Amino acid sequence: MTLKRSALIACAALAAVSFTAPAMADDAGEIKYRKSVMKSIGGHMGAIAGIFKAETGNSTNLGVHTQGIADLAKITASVFPAGSDFGETEALPAVWEKPDDFSKAVKMFQDAAANLNSAAMSGDMAATGAAFGGLGKTCKNCHENFREKKKQ
Amino acid sequence: MTLKRSALIACAALAAVSFTAPAMADDAGEIKYRKSVMKSIGGHMGAIAGIFKAETGNSTNLGVHTQGIADLAKITASVFPAGSDFGETEALPAVWEKPDDFSKAVKMFQDAAANLNSAAMSGDMAATGAAFGGLGKTCKNCHENFREKKKQ
Repeated sequence: MTLKRSALIACAALAAVSFTAPAMADDAGEIKYRKSVMKSIGGHMGAIAGIFKAETGNSTNLGVHTQGIADLAKITASVFPAGSDFGETEALPAVWEKPDDFSKAVKMFQDAAANLNSAAMSGDMAATGAAFGGLGKTCKNCHENFREKKKQ
Repeated sequence: MTLKRSALIACAALAAVSFTAPAMADDAGEIKYRKSVMKSIGGHMGAIAGIFKAETGNSTNLGVHTQGIADLAKITASVFPAGSDFGETEALPAVWEKPDDFSKAVKMFQDAAANLNSAAMSGDMAATGAAFGGLGKTCKNCHENFREKKKQ
């Protein structure tokens, strides 16, 4: 092996490492971050369900949860960056392969979350309940089309 | 058994049912609600940690998480109502037996969360990092003194 050839191989190896290693670390980190955001959204959804089922007497906390989801909905698109499509994730390739469809689904979620928050702020519990049902449908829509089926 | 006596027993049984059954249902519901609120807080904490560790590129989402925790901290005392001290919960009796100590611990959490949010809004990342560390200590303080030790 000539010096030139071994130097080239070394450079290629270095380039490969610097290109792939940080990207893999980033993917795992982005997936972890996504799960944290989804966990927070899930907590709020469960809390609102508990209020509507009167499982808790804390109905006055409703606005904290509806505002919380509305805020988290605004950043939901950002938690699916390019490259975060493999590893310990249940997100389907469709998120990145059908970006227009995914954007629409996220927009529906954001609109429904904003709608729920407005209804909650108005104090109209019937409208708020209906809006909560509407929001649940947008969660389900994304989870059915862009997330792996849960194992039975 | 006289009619009077059987009627008395029936009344006592009815009273016992109406006294205990709804209370037990409420407790389970309140505990479930508490877990949802803690889940949401935990999601935000994990998300902020991911931002500080640069595991995610979504550093511009920081304010959503710090505001989210500050809002959830304000309702934290409310998720420990009287009677929600037994059942599927890791909350220790100390929450209800030492209400002054518990209130102080919750207040420290609330102040630290508000402090973190203010620091994040200021854009001073060194101050925000320090404030996040301070908030983590208040989580730990409550979990060490008012929550069952996690099983190994």
